[in-house]
Amino acid sequence: MTSNRQWILKRRPEAALRDEDLELKTAVLPASLERRQVLLKTLYVHLAPTTRNWMNPRRENDRNSLYPETKVGEPVKGPAISEVVASSHPDYPIGSRWFNVEGWQEFALINPDDATHPLGRIAEAADVIQCLSVLGPNGLAAYFGVEKIGKPQAGETVIVSGAAGSTGSVAAQIAKLKGCKVIGIAGGSAKCAWLTRELGLDAAIDYKSERVESRLRQLAPAGVDFFFDNVGGEILSAVVENMAVRGRIALCGQIATYNDGGRTVAPLNVMHLVYWRVKIEGFIMSDWWHEIEEARSKINEWILQGKIKHREDVRHGFERIPTAFADLFSGANTGTLLVKMDS
Amino acid sequence: MTSNRQWILKRRPEAALRDEDLELKTAVLPASLERRQVLLKTLYVHLAPTTRNWMNPRRENDRNSLYPETKVGEPVKGPAISEVVASSHPDYPIGSRWFNVEGWQEFALINPDDATHPLGRIAEAADVIQCLSVLGPNGLAAYFGVEKIGKPQAGETVIVSGAAGSTGSVAAQIAKLKGCKVIGIAGGSAKCAWLTRELGLDAAIDYKSERVESRLRQLAPAGVDFFFDNVGGEILSAVVENMAVRGRIALCGQIATYNDGGRTVAPLNVMHLVYWRVKIEGFIMSDWWHEIEEARSKINEWILQGKIKHREDVRHGFERIPTAFADLFSGANTGTLLVKMDS
Repeated sequence: MTSNRQWILKRRPEAALRDEDLELKTAVLPASLERRQVLLKTLYVHLAPTTRNWMNPRRENDRNSLYPETKVGEPVKGPAISEVVASSHPDYPIGSRWFNVEGWQEFALINPDDATHPLGRIAEAADVIQCLSVLGPNGLAAYFGVEKIGKPQAGETVIVSGAAGSTGSVAAQIAKLKGCKVIGIAGGSAKCAWLTRELGLDAAIDYKSERVESRLRQLAPAGVDFFFDNVGGEILSAVVENMAVRGRIALCGQIATYNDGGRTVAPLNVMHLVYWRVKIEGFIMSDWWHEIEEARSKINEWILQGKIKHREDVRHGFERIPTAFADLFSGANTGTLLVKMDS
Repeated sequence: MTSNRQWILKRRPEAALRDEDLELKTAVLPASLERRQVLLKTLYVHLAPTTRNWMNPRRENDRNSLYPETKVGEPVKGPAISEVVASSHPDYPIGSRWFNVEGWQEFALINPDDATHPLGRIAEAADVIQCLSVLGPNGLAAYFGVEKIGKPQAGETVIVSGAAGSTGSVAAQIAKLKGCKVIGIAGGSAKCAWLTRELGLDAAIDYKSERVESRLRQLAPAGVDFFFDNVGGEILSAVVENMAVRGRIALCGQIATYNDGGRTVAPLNVMHLVYWRVKIEGFIMSDWWHEIEEARSKINEWILQGKIKHREDVRHGFERIPTAFADLFSGANTGTLLVKMDS
């Protein structure tokens, strides 16, 4: 192994990531490692919506370094699981597997001591795919968003947007486990059917063919107690209109806005938030870093009991990453979108 | 007294309240009272921005009756202080004064037992003007928004919009009392000068002549820890961009949006709320009904100690109500806007 194919960010995307923003380059790997260096071979790349956000320029006064930035000229950063294939670092033995954000490249040569984002060891017995999906950042975000922000009680009405997605499907099922009435919002009849028939949700709204605001009014006449939002934009706007008194909104993601720098331009009824005393809270799962193992074992227990179902959409081949990434934004993927490396 | 002039809502305003939406009518008062009826003579009307919201049609599924609705054909509802001039109710003696929402009319004939919004007795020794301003709903909203929602700590940076207004000026001063760095946003250099010179705020931004977002970035380079928002719209949008990690936003009012049914159309960087884990919370002061007396005595203590300054803009004459009300939305008032009845 001497060459390393990389998807390089050639320029900052202005809206959706386009082919012209990327360049496929082949870098040469060094013949030997420096002290405490590790060569990671990418096994799976997780195509997460937030990867698009990481391509935006960091603001001048940004002191919030919790998420990585992909700079122009660098390989696109994004969640991945990789295996150590060469190592001069005692804590990173050959064959060990690590969650990392080195992203869209076949190999990554790093010094883990200098990594701004700590690598997470994957247990030997673990299922790599699950570690990037239902037991990975997305499943954990679902868990913490429901348990720490929404705290829905039995009998309450819970709405999840992006409900057929990697995070949303787990959030919706956890809310069901708590005895809530759960309504999912997803794009297309196939996804909606999966939500109600396979996951047991009480109802699903197809935002591509139904008017979310009026449909919600029918399905949740007493208002929405907790909204787990992955989408934002017009869907956030529609759910805000339907929030119940003292409703809570957990902001997990805003995929509808990522191509506009995170800004929603849909009119938001903020005064409804005042009169109805609604609370909106943004969160990221790494805020509960010390509780991750506990959360993971809880989710795993639910999976083994058949109470949480999950699905992954695994594509194959390094060169297909950009095409697969575009599917995330059109909703053409079903479940966690992963790309398995060729060899 | 046999006649009662009333400003009647002739039709629902579509945007800003216009002359054509109102009609000045003279109703005839009955010669005698029914059992448990009370005749209230209006002393002062408080022109509160929310009066505009109360003119909107109540939504079908609205089970949140905490605020009154002005129906077409009825006198405009709004906060007022009135004196009992005739009574057949033992709890409402002649000469007693009451806070009520009977609004824009010279007299109100009511049965207090049936009132959807309870009347609040004004102590005999109390200053009626203060009871509608700094010790009234606006001062109390300022108090609870700071104490219960924002809970700013000494050294934190606090932003208040509508800072020269009835609620904002009190909120800003309470935050100063807590040792915060406080920046007010107001319209015009006179109001800004009042904030910094009279109230001792650390800085003021004139939204009419300065760009709020970039000015805030200069004045609060470490970000905003707590934002007390009375305005919404583009100002909310600009402050959201500048929120610090774990910042809190208390939504008290959204005057910029009232003429659009409470909906803000300014692009909101919701993703910033996610990455920075910002919390937004709507509130209304009546949620702390049982703590109102304690809050009022605390504010009163600060007033007596010279730590909280307040000012009222008192207009005269019943027929001037609509013109004065328009001043609220253009910012032409200074402090709590009241109309004193002619006699």
